[in-house]
Amino acid sequence: MLSFILLGFSGLLAQHPNQETETVLKKMSDEIMLNGNSYHDLVELVGIGPRLTGSDLALKAVDWAENKMKSYGFDRVYRQPVMVPKWERGNIATAAANVNGKKENLKIVALGRSVGTPKGGLEAEVIEVKHLSDLDKLGSSVKGKIVFFNRPFDETVVSTLEAYGGAVDQRSAGPSRAAKYGAVATIARSMTNRIDDHPHTGMLRYDDNFPKIPAAAITTQDAEKLSRLISENPSVKISMEMNCQNLPDVLSYNVIGEIKGSEFPDEIIVVGGHLDSWDLSVGAQDDGAGCVQSIEVLNTFKKLAVKPKRTLRAVMFMSEEVGGIGGKEYAVQAEKLKEKHIAAMESDLGGFTPRGIEIQANEPVFNQVTQWKSYFKRLKADDFEKGSGGVDIGPLSNLGVSLFGLIPDSQRYFDIHHSDNDDLSTVNPRELKLGAVVMTQLVYLLSENGLRN
Amino acid sequence: MLSFILLGFSGLLAQHPNQETETVLKKMSDEIMLNGNSYHDLVELVGIGPRLTGSDLALKAVDWAENKMKSYGFDRVYRQPVMVPKWERGNIATAAANVNGKKENLKIVALGRSVGTPKGGLEAEVIEVKHLSDLDKLGSSVKGKIVFFNRPFDETVVSTLEAYGGAVDQRSAGPSRAAKYGAVATIARSMTNRIDDHPHTGMLRYDDNFPKIPAAAITTQDAEKLSRLISENPSVKISMEMNCQNLPDVLSYNVIGEIKGSEFPDEIIVVGGHLDSWDLSVGAQDDGAGCVQSIEVLNTFKKLAVKPKRTLRAVMFMSEEVGGIGGKEYAVQAEKLKEKHIAAMESDLGGFTPRGIEIQANEPVFNQVTQWKSYFKRLKADDFEKGSGGVDIGPLSNLGVSLFGLIPDSQRYFDIHHSDNDDLSTVNPRELKLGAVVMTQLVYLLSENGLRN
Repeated sequence: MLSFILLGFSGLLAQHPNQETETVLKKMSDEIMLNGNSYHDLVELVGIGPRLTGSDLALKAVDWAENKMKSYGFDRVYRQPVMVPKWERGNIATAAANVNGKKENLKIVALGRSVGTPKGGLEAEVIEVKHLSDLDKLGSSVKGKIVFFNRPFDETVVSTLEAYGGAVDQRSAGPSRAAKYGAVATIARSMTNRIDDHPHTGMLRYDDNFPKIPAAAITTQDAEKLSRLISENPSVKISMEMNCQNLPDVLSYNVIGEIKGSEFPDEIIVVGGHLDSWDLSVGAQDDGAGCVQSIEVLNTFKKLAVKPKRTLRAVMFMSEEVGGIGGKEYAVQAEKLKEKHIAAMESDLGGFTPRGIEIQANEPVFNQVTQWKSYFKRLKADDFEKGSGGVDIGPLSNLGVSLFGLIPDSQRYFDIHHSDNDDLSTVNPRELKLGAVVMTQLVYLLSENGLRN
Repeated sequence: MLSFILLGFSGLLAQHPNQETETVLKKMSDEIMLNGNSYHDLVELVGIGPRLTGSDLALKAVDWAENKMKSYGFDRVYRQPVMVPKWERGNIATAAANVNGKKENLKIVALGRSVGTPKGGLEAEVIEVKHLSDLDKLGSSVKGKIVFFNRPFDETVVSTLEAYGGAVDQRSAGPSRAAKYGAVATIARSMTNRIDDHPHTGMLRYDDNFPKIPAAAITTQDAEKLSRLISENPSVKISMEMNCQNLPDVLSYNVIGEIKGSEFPDEIIVVGGHLDSWDLSVGAQDDGAGCVQSIEVLNTFKKLAVKPKRTLRAVMFMSEEVGGIGGKEYAVQAEKLKEKHIAAMESDLGGFTPRGIEIQANEPVFNQVTQWKSYFKRLKADDFEKGSGGVDIGPLSNLGVSLFGLIPDSQRYFDIHHSDNDDLSTVNPRELKLGAVVMTQLVYLLSENGLRN
């Protein structure tokens, strides 16, 4: 009985950290904080410009990533071809509320993958709703109208990611739900905590069972204004015009850099971010940060001549923003080539101060990895939680791969997410590098110990 | 034996949270996140301008704080007179390196409390050192020279506050140490992690045993430049001129708002920040944030009609930046009036995402308060550490008061600390409010439970 209790007791305590491991991890951390290249790499990457999937600038980013990893001397650097969607925003996205003949301009942007309006635009009465389920109640009274989704983020939840998750259906599924009842277009409140004049784009998902109708995001400031106009005059009409369009898929690439494992070269550990961004900004945080952090991880092994026991891959995924296509293709190829991936880690929530790691794995792996928490205490990034690894590595879970997502502080992310202000000025070099340190530490521990899958 | 083990075992587990307490705390949190005034109050406060202690604008801030707390209907709002230092920066702070007759301008600012140079400036050879102890070795070879302190922050430590603590002697004690060996002036590398063109001021402390020599801070960018110039040409001279000056002390005020305790009105709990800022910026983070958060704490009790068992005071301290004078005076008056303070909390590390609470108290209090950690888990601010409460509440520790300091994320703080870019654009409203939530929760728990002092 006593021994049983003592066993339970010791299980509660974190594993005693290994001194030798601590020493290597501290050396890696110091190297990144003192000499890390991630911030300078990010300056270069965002210098290319917005990297919308299917665009020429996205291909320039492919060149950059390939050359950069080659310049760092990784064992192997290569492109993985993938056909990606091509959508163009066009140069027209205007909207105005017509209140008894008086026009009030509204700042909008087209949602990613949206069709355009007819040339010359469309005009219709507007109906404001908070929830998609409101449409089911309204039914045919939605017909011929523009649906205005205006449910703000829940400010009472601490994680803004959770707030985003609770609001994003208005953007992603809203258009087709409105089309189901005969709406002619939708306008969704931008997905952000701030009340400001930056519209936030993002992908919609059309349901093939219903007509594809034009869909836009409106700034939170103008969402508040429109709501007021509607409450003052329920017969307010909206005119809007957009000339965005979907074109045939085009060839693009994931970019992969590799360091061969010294003991178990066939066991692969992926660390990655996505190379594409939205077209409204240079995507410094989403996800330039994740790309340069992933390169930093491998480069730190390289610079310190730490030979990983298992093979490490930095993967820059293409077309995460539009369909998560690169991530899907990577998993398809991994299966086809019968590669044995043991773990994958993703950074796609911004290069803010790291708080911990989200773990999508079976119970033995979860228990094994949480025993390493003590190594992350010094970094104040020891919040290890069950959750999802991320969009790009997600498809690998079907192959039994354990997934890990970097959790940065979330408070500032949606201030800039998918909007024109996701630029370098929002990135703090130390926060970016600390994220890379957390990733490097986990990758080192995975590489040294493998996983009890 | 078994019962002993079980006792030890249960002691390891956090106290089971009380449901009723949870409900009140969640209500307070929601009120702040949804309807909190702190960000709007900060907009007003920074609208006054820089609030250097002893200045007219600092007195305007006193008016503002008094009127604001009265408008919120606190039970009692009053000023506490305090004589504060008056130092004026003047309008001249120039420096240049003279390399074989060629002038290279250097961007400097006078350190707070520094004397000026002679009119027309001074010129002398420069000597670069990393540590104050280097001066003891150099001895009289420093005589007649300008000492250039150029030790950067240690980037390998995770807490930038720790890095600051490891570097700030160059600014605070450097001038007198240099004067001890006959130096005619000092220039210290700005106290920041970033390499940029913003000089960071801050107080120096003259040692009365040595001559008061002029002392400046130089931008990190120009510190790097100057270091290079010196290495290329050791006989480089510096010319510098500053017309800052110290004037006689003037009358100013701490501002105090109070809500009377319903059960133990004689037991006082302080929550505060400092109203003065440096003159280079509006001090949005340092410490406008702490002021508006402290007001938010009391206002939340007020708005929700939660009657605190013990008396709560929001204290806006004056002259923290120059001598911590307001905090000292508050403790003097507390002792004189025989007020029974049980606890004091301070927010003076910026309104960034809160991570936890620093506790300066005896062991029983530390143990009592850490039992409340579970209430802070939802906020991801449950990092409770032994440490210092803060500069302003520090003097209360001599009266046996338990001290608590809000710990926000530290990564961005020294990017803006004491420089011209400590403005509203660096404040995220949610981060600011989350800090106020943490403070409100602790104050509520202190007020309900008292302390086992």
